[in-house]
Amino acid sequence: MRFSKTFIKTLREAPKDETAKNGALLTRAGYIHKEMAGVYDYLPFGIRVIENIKAIIRDELNKIGCEEVLLSALQNPELWEKTGRFSDTEVDVWFKTELSAGGVLGLAPTHEEPLTNMLKTYVSSYKDLPLYIYQFQTKFRNELRAKSGILRGREFLMKDLYSFHTSEEDLDKFYNEVEKAYGRIFERLGIGDSTFETFASGGIFSKYSHEFQTFLPVGEDTVYYNKDKSIVLNEEVLNDEVLADLGVSRDELTETTAAEVGNIFKLKYKYSEPLGLKFADEKNEQKNVYMGCYGIGVSRLMGVIAEKFSDEKGLVWPEAIAPFKYHLIGIGAEGTKAAEEFYNKHEEMTLFDDRDLRPGEKFADAELIGIPFRVVISDKTLKDGMAEVTLRKSGETKLVKIEELEEL
Amino acid sequence: MRFSKTFIKTLREAPKDETAKNGALLTRAGYIHKEMAGVYDYLPFGIRVIENIKAIIRDELNKIGCEEVLLSALQNPELWEKTGRFSDTEVDVWFKTELSAGGVLGLAPTHEEPLTNMLKTYVSSYKDLPLYIYQFQTKFRNELRAKSGILRGREFLMKDLYSFHTSEEDLDKFYNEVEKAYGRIFERLGIGDSTFETFASGGIFSKYSHEFQTFLPVGEDTVYYNKDKSIVLNEEVLNDEVLADLGVSRDELTETTAAEVGNIFKLKYKYSEPLGLKFADEKNEQKNVYMGCYGIGVSRLMGVIAEKFSDEKGLVWPEAIAPFKYHLIGIGAEGTKAAEEFYNKHEEMTLFDDRDLRPGEKFADAELIGIPFRVVISDKTLKDGMAEVTLRKSGETKLVKIEELEEL
Repeated sequence: MRFSKTFIKTLREAPKDETAKNGALLTRAGYIHKEMAGVYDYLPFGIRVIENIKAIIRDELNKIGCEEVLLSALQNPELWEKTGRFSDTEVDVWFKTELSAGGVLGLAPTHEEPLTNMLKTYVSSYKDLPLYIYQFQTKFRNELRAKSGILRGREFLMKDLYSFHTSEEDLDKFYNEVEKAYGRIFERLGIGDSTFETFASGGIFSKYSHEFQTFLPVGEDTVYYNKDKSIVLNEEVLNDEVLADLGVSRDELTETTAAEVGNIFKLKYKYSEPLGLKFADEKNEQKNVYMGCYGIGVSRLMGVIAEKFSDEKGLVWPEAIAPFKYHLIGIGAEGTKAAEEFYNKHEEMTLFDDRDLRPGEKFADAELIGIPFRVVISDKTLKDGMAEVTLRKSGETKLVKIEELEEL
Repeated sequence: MRFSKTFIKTLREAPKDETAKNGALLTRAGYIHKEMAGVYDYLPFGIRVIENIKAIIRDELNKIGCEEVLLSALQNPELWEKTGRFSDTEVDVWFKTELSAGGVLGLAPTHEEPLTNMLKTYVSSYKDLPLYIYQFQTKFRNELRAKSGILRGREFLMKDLYSFHTSEEDLDKFYNEVEKAYGRIFERLGIGDSTFETFASGGIFSKYSHEFQTFLPVGEDTVYYNKDKSIVLNEEVLNDEVLADLGVSRDELTETTAAEVGNIFKLKYKYSEPLGLKFADEKNEQKNVYMGCYGIGVSRLMGVIAEKFSDEKGLVWPEAIAPFKYHLIGIGAEGTKAAEEFYNKHEEMTLFDDRDLRPGEKFADAELIGIPFRVVISDKTLKDGMAEVTLRKSGETKLVKIEELEEL
């Protein structure tokens, strides 16, 4: 992308009402624009980061046999009344709206009901199971407060996966596979070291669910951990019974804050039973389908990573999700010409700062935008066929042969 | 994709309330699932068609210098009150919802206001213009009736492009470029022959806008055309003044029905003025930004193409947007083994019907699903290293060497 051709400009100041670091930095660097609290637009750089995160998640889910769909945002109350979840006391984040033709609709805060209902068309026998179905879909949640940038949105992008099984054992098996896939996803996203599977409260059918919590000073959750015992638990389950279960005492635990980037949940037949999703087993007996659900907050992840990997100068993207690999700058007539040549060969992975600005301004913007490799080709470096490469992460600068830049 | 691994099954019957051919066929063939009137889910095959349509549109828009963003669905009334469009009499398709924290929000039926407002952050001088910014975003429209399958949705996918200029001349120039790009898009989508640029009513700033209408028996619009004079006009502008303008008489026009797949509109400063989007010209005088807007109904296009290219047996996708290129079937032990080998090499573009069904059932499903090339490898064809290829469009069958299938 040519910087001169995009409408994006970096901003000296974030909007006054943007108190969260992720929101402020991502806005200043031109990734997002705030419409109102908890509601953001994604600009060209921001779309690229979101798509990179989605690609990693999609890749890992497809590897374990998941299929992608796209369910609607508008929801028919009929389905949700069967599970009792259209009630605002049961689910307190509904946005509801009136249909001109009569009746009330909801905006999906999650999608168990419509998917479970849809599968009644496709599942009748044990031979149709198991199924693993996911989507990337905008969720709407009517949060009372939303002051954490894109860490807590009223409208946000989520990956939600649902699994359908003939037995609890099969559900357990797949649940373990998802645990591992999530581990690989967070690893590839660059937050493997700081993201921990965490005990959290279950539902009527499970003692526990699991969250994936990324330790983060501004995280909205409080968790307790013991690294030696590899135990992390959400404060909501910090009680004597759970401590006994996990074989750890309160004294051995350290408190910290964290952001929930994923969660996995054994639903068993919580939704299949009221919605009537059954299958005929080998003996032709009708049984409830066992279910699990597995979420990852895609836009929240972008915010968590922005918070986590940033310094006083700006963002520091992990290479796997950076909007570009190279932030390219040409200096001098020959240097600029060589930069053009490099750009023409590596357009897709390069932000070419071809704006009519002083190098110093470009350098400051490169630090704010946070692309992994700043590549400067000047008349001087070009004499030896070299480019000056600065790693955003470490600040380290080195000379690299232009034809070897690809190997970075 | 292995058919045996997806949850999709073809259905003998469409839901009783699905009266539109596109809705019924797409449902039976496993592309979509109806949640309620005007609200559909997209299943794995359906997502692939939508993504193929998006890729063609994106490619043509990027070629003329457009940039992609993603704006929010939730809308702040403040912006829309400035243009008078939050009023339900002015815009009669709003879905509105209440924010827990207080106040009313809207669900975007279109995005002129938020994008115009956002650009106040990025545009200050003539040097910042022109800009061409688009998105693929779900639109919400509270239609009183929605009985045309995915031709008219209450929730649907649209590509909306907005352009920003320093002068009317520059707007006119880009408008012409979009006209040509739209021509290329509809050509690539396979509906070039039946899609016509059509005069439609303008607004307070333009005598006309232009629609792109695809002639279609079940189209909801009525248009009048004269092929010799290359004139098509929407019935809403069928009056003496317009006929005189276009140099055509009523007698020379033939009436037909059509579906609007795109529209382009010169907005001039209809939105920039009330929202305060100005630029400083060369003399440092503040002027209103000129604007144009350009829509394409992405999910509607899928419906139009499904209606247009289908026969009594099922769908007939144009190759450019078909979910797969090959519908692969193996017959007999050796034939199936060879089919497996072909599938392993061409996984991405192949639907491999590896289900445990009789060939006749697979053939019927192939016709319903409508993938361009049905490829059958049987023990018999394999003896000569051949596959039997049936073109869905013509029904023509021929033997093709397996290693030459790629050249189809």
